[in-house]
Amino acid sequence: MTSTAPAPPGSGTWMATEIREQPAALRRTVDTLLPQVPEVAALAARTRQVLFVARGSSDAAAHYGRYLCEVGAGRLATPASPSVATLYRRRLDLSGVLAVALSQSGRTAEIVETLVWARDCGARTVAVTNDAGSPLAAAAELVLVTAAGPERALPATKTYTTQLAALVVLALGLGADPALGSALRTVPAAVEAALDTAAAATELAERLSDVDGLVVSGRGFASSTAWELSLKIRETCAIDASGLSYADLLHGPIAVVGARTPALLVAAADGPVLPGVLGLADRLRAAGAPVYGIGGGPALAAACTAALPGPDLPEALAPLALVVPGQLTAEALSRRLGLDPDTPGGLTKVTQTDGGAG
Amino acid sequence: MTSTAPAPPGSGTWMATEIREQPAALRRTVDTLLPQVPEVAALAARTRQVLFVARGSSDAAAHYGRYLCEVGAGRLATPASPSVATLYRRRLDLSGVLAVALSQSGRTAEIVETLVWARDCGARTVAVTNDAGSPLAAAAELVLVTAAGPERALPATKTYTTQLAALVVLALGLGADPALGSALRTVPAAVEAALDTAAAATELAERLSDVDGLVVSGRGFASSTAWELSLKIRETCAIDASGLSYADLLHGPIAVVGARTPALLVAAADGPVLPGVLGLADRLRAAGAPVYGIGGGPALAAACTAALPGPDLPEALAPLALVVPGQLTAEALSRRLGLDPDTPGGLTKVTQTDGGAG
Repeated sequence: MTSTAPAPPGSGTWMATEIREQPAALRRTVDTLLPQVPEVAALAARTRQVLFVARGSSDAAAHYGRYLCEVGAGRLATPASPSVATLYRRRLDLSGVLAVALSQSGRTAEIVETLVWARDCGARTVAVTNDAGSPLAAAAELVLVTAAGPERALPATKTYTTQLAALVVLALGLGADPALGSALRTVPAAVEAALDTAAAATELAERLSDVDGLVVSGRGFASSTAWELSLKIRETCAIDASGLSYADLLHGPIAVVGARTPALLVAAADGPVLPGVLGLADRLRAAGAPVYGIGGGPALAAACTAALPGPDLPEALAPLALVVPGQLTAEALSRRLGLDPDTPGGLTKVTQTDGGAG
Repeated sequence: MTSTAPAPPGSGTWMATEIREQPAALRRTVDTLLPQVPEVAALAARTRQVLFVARGSSDAAAHYGRYLCEVGAGRLATPASPSVATLYRRRLDLSGVLAVALSQSGRTAEIVETLVWARDCGARTVAVTNDAGSPLAAAAELVLVTAAGPERALPATKTYTTQLAALVVLALGLGADPALGSALRTVPAAVEAALDTAAAATELAERLSDVDGLVVSGRGFASSTAWELSLKIRETCAIDASGLSYADLLHGPIAVVGARTPALLVAAADGPVLPGVLGLADRLRAAGAPVYGIGGGPALAAACTAALPGPDLPEALAPLALVVPGQLTAEALSRRLGLDPDTPGGLTKVTQTDGGAG
């Protein structure tokens, strides 16, 4: 351990420590990246749309990025299928496309290779990474370096929320309302406040400790939070927590929700998707399933079996803090199940999809 | 019941009957739609990319369509986020975009509304539907009508595989190798042969009858099959079957696979993604998890605990038949669990995401 980051308390985990480091990590990241908005704007000037290249938690972040680009900046956003580049080796015409690759390590070979492919296909390129010296950073025309500091727990927490902040900077460069930039400065305090849900998160973890599975759902901006929390719970708790848009949930998967497979719904305190989330909570409870909530204001709390409060942020920024009570829940649940959230089985920090080196 | 379609045998289900109707439904659909390739080509002439609008099984079909467009026709393909249109009401610049909406009923209000939005944003529009008289068909410039006939079971089977055939026609119109069109004519026979896996599917259903959950995975073209089978098993069996790209699986969710949550891997008999699927099978079995396979040739069968044979089709067409052993498995498993696959709980044939009327 060569870093100067503080060691976790004797009874704590790196994951818990890093969850608590998020307000500071976000402050550093916002301070570093907001001045880069003009660079993004210059690079994006002759592009019309965005292509996101990501896997895992970075892909959950990219999911948020898609809503920011489309709803926030009016630009069509596409998730890349990396196998088209790395296995099928098919060239596409990507002129007019801004390719944005996200990887906290910047060392996932598949992601680096796909960004290089995008560049060769005519795209302009941006990397979002926590390592300025990584191969991904070297491959991109513009690098947005998150200032999360070293992350020791395998599950991404502070590298995830700082990626979301970088995506807000991206959206500002693409033409999103500058008020989003001012509001971004209030996010670290909102995340600080979200840490106060720790005791309630431990209670929620207790309720989730004997489920067969879990369905995590949200819609619009918050669907990224649902997807990220499903990953967090799967990897730290070995519980099969499916992350689904509430719209997708209604098309079949709703059949699996029940007493042994409760639902966890996430939502911002307002916005056009909230009524649908409330309706879903009512429907699931009427069917006899426990429904837990994060955010969604007093209305979602009233509709749920139990709920953790969400942040007081505009809907477009809520995902940066909405994930925090869920991170706390996953960490507590992992320990409750006798697991070590810092080193869940079968995973390494740099995931190589196809077994390649660096 | 006003249709002339044959009633299911006394001991059978509509779902089983409709699975067996697929060769005939595909023959009719291929005969009807292949002559429309020039119409697709004419409409697509001044577009550079594709936007898919779909939910549920139609979205699994769209997932296949994305690979067909990108790998087969060299066109970037994007899944639409319907809420951008229907809830956030944000306009995007969709000039140069071919919007393709899929809905077997053609009556899901969200899908119709999103296609109309795409048209208003400058896109050219195509509908793929099983009902030529539906609102979706009325909203599109070009309609590819699948000839599946009436589908009585709630889970889509023949409307799904005929959608895939329509997407092959779309790809041909976008410039895919004409050899794909000739090969498409061999698909009905391959589906006919796939029906011979019924006994083996019943055995697989027996093995799956007491799992806590299931992870269904594939990559590239066959990832659409994994997604569709996860939906089928969720809706007909109320088992939480997650559908994940094998690459996504390696980023966290692999932790949930184990003795009580086995994996079901689907793959074509050859192609560049097969080695990775074989490696995944080996890794999961080494970790003690049962691994079941559909397709992937003798190599995947050898790597699995048990496997159902897949079709002898080129990788790009394999999904049209690869899904069939999985449909048979879902139908048998549903009955084995005492459920009725024709009318699983909580679902209606026309899914309204936001509770709107037709």
